[in-house]
Amino acid sequence: MKTMDELKKLAGERAADKIKSGMNVGLGTGSTATFMIERLAERIQNENLEIKAVSTSWSTTLLCRKLGIPLMEMGEASHLDIAIDGADEIDGKRNLIKGRGAAHLLEKIVAAMADTYIIIADDRKKVSELGKKFAVPLEILPNAIGLVTAKVEALGAKVKVRQGAPGKDGPVISDSGNLIADAFFDGIKDPETLARNLEHIPGLLGHGLFVGMADRVILATPDGIIEF
Amino acid sequence: MKTMDELKKLAGERAADKIKSGMNVGLGTGSTATFMIERLAERIQNENLEIKAVSTSWSTTLLCRKLGIPLMEMGEASHLDIAIDGADEIDGKRNLIKGRGAAHLLEKIVAAMADTYIIIADDRKKVSELGKKFAVPLEILPNAIGLVTAKVEALGAKVKVRQGAPGKDGPVISDSGNLIADAFFDGIKDPETLARNLEHIPGLLGHGLFVGMADRVILATPDGIIEF
Repeated sequence: MKTMDELKKLAGERAADKIKSGMNVGLGTGSTATFMIERLAERIQNENLEIKAVSTSWSTTLLCRKLGIPLMEMGEASHLDIAIDGADEIDGKRNLIKGRGAAHLLEKIVAAMADTYIIIADDRKKVSELGKKFAVPLEILPNAIGLVTAKVEALGAKVKVRQGAPGKDGPVISDSGNLIADAFFDGIKDPETLARNLEHIPGLLGHGLFVGMADRVILATPDGIIEF
Repeated sequence: MKTMDELKKLAGERAADKIKSGMNVGLGTGSTATFMIERLAERIQNENLEIKAVSTSWSTTLLCRKLGIPLMEMGEASHLDIAIDGADEIDGKRNLIKGRGAAHLLEKIVAAMADTYIIIADDRKKVSELGKKFAVPLEILPNAIGLVTAKVEALGAKVKVRQGAPGKDGPVISDSGNLIADAFFDGIKDPETLARNLEHIPGLLGHGLFVGMADRVILATPDGIIEF
């Protein structure tokens, strides 16, 4: 019986092995993505793989620098061959909730650039309906916190500004300098419509619903890897 | 024959006179809005009008401080009784293009809070179709400039990062710390669909199309004030 970390590692390595020399690659954030990035660094060294990577967070940028993975600026890129990232919830249509690590705005920018967007996760992330257990993370301009809270609550959620991270008093601040909040919907029947409604709210700069973006999910289960 | 400034002043004063004591008020940015704000300051002094204002820019904040208009923080507000602002283009359905002053993201947050949203302008701003003469201003996360440029150009526009403002080398930076670009569409047949398509692009934090938001337009013409 493999541990969860061993399963995550298997999924991360399977994804890293899809990267080919010459590709521009988007690299996600989080524990499963870390296994993928470590495997990519090995391949760069052992196989002389030539790639350029775009990082989705400070966390991943620092890891890439440490491992010698060549980075390009996100703003410089408009197209990537492949992007690989984790997710917090995944439904049967490969719709996602992302953002437990508060990186969902930059992660979505990178996902939108990629020809092929691959999600790696362990099977605890697979759900029949998004948003039952997990909230939708929001990135909010501080000036709009009053408006966005009211508008998102009018859509049926309870909104809570994310607080209490160790190392900083007060609310969590994203890598882009904004507030992070979590919207608890108690189930999301129609993720596409909800995504559109969220996008229409001024000052709501990003949300963690990724609808119709993932091309492939690599899921680590106790019985091995499943792809769908 | 009145000058254009005299006409703008008439429109601004007409709008300021709609504000009642006890109201929470959103105050726009720009030359016509300035006339409205000056009139509001007079009324506060002469009529003991009690209001609280939310400002849409540093420019308006500094003007309010100078004139003694009491301000509240934008993030504190979720609802306003009235908001008054200028516009760069106005069509017959009261759809707008705003953002020549790069304040359109904060202006839209304030507009979305207001029960009644009033636009004041001179009649050179009235057009039969938005976007023929004027570009749609965008506010873009610096990290997303490559993606957003590619996506907006795929919608049929030419995108140009706004540059060359006196007093700062390089691109214009908004009050929220982002890049401003202008999207030239050469006419916008369906502003609502275009707005939705723009809102769906990750990293495009705000755009200057205001569709279905304005309740009333006060237009200064050489023959006097028109409301519609």
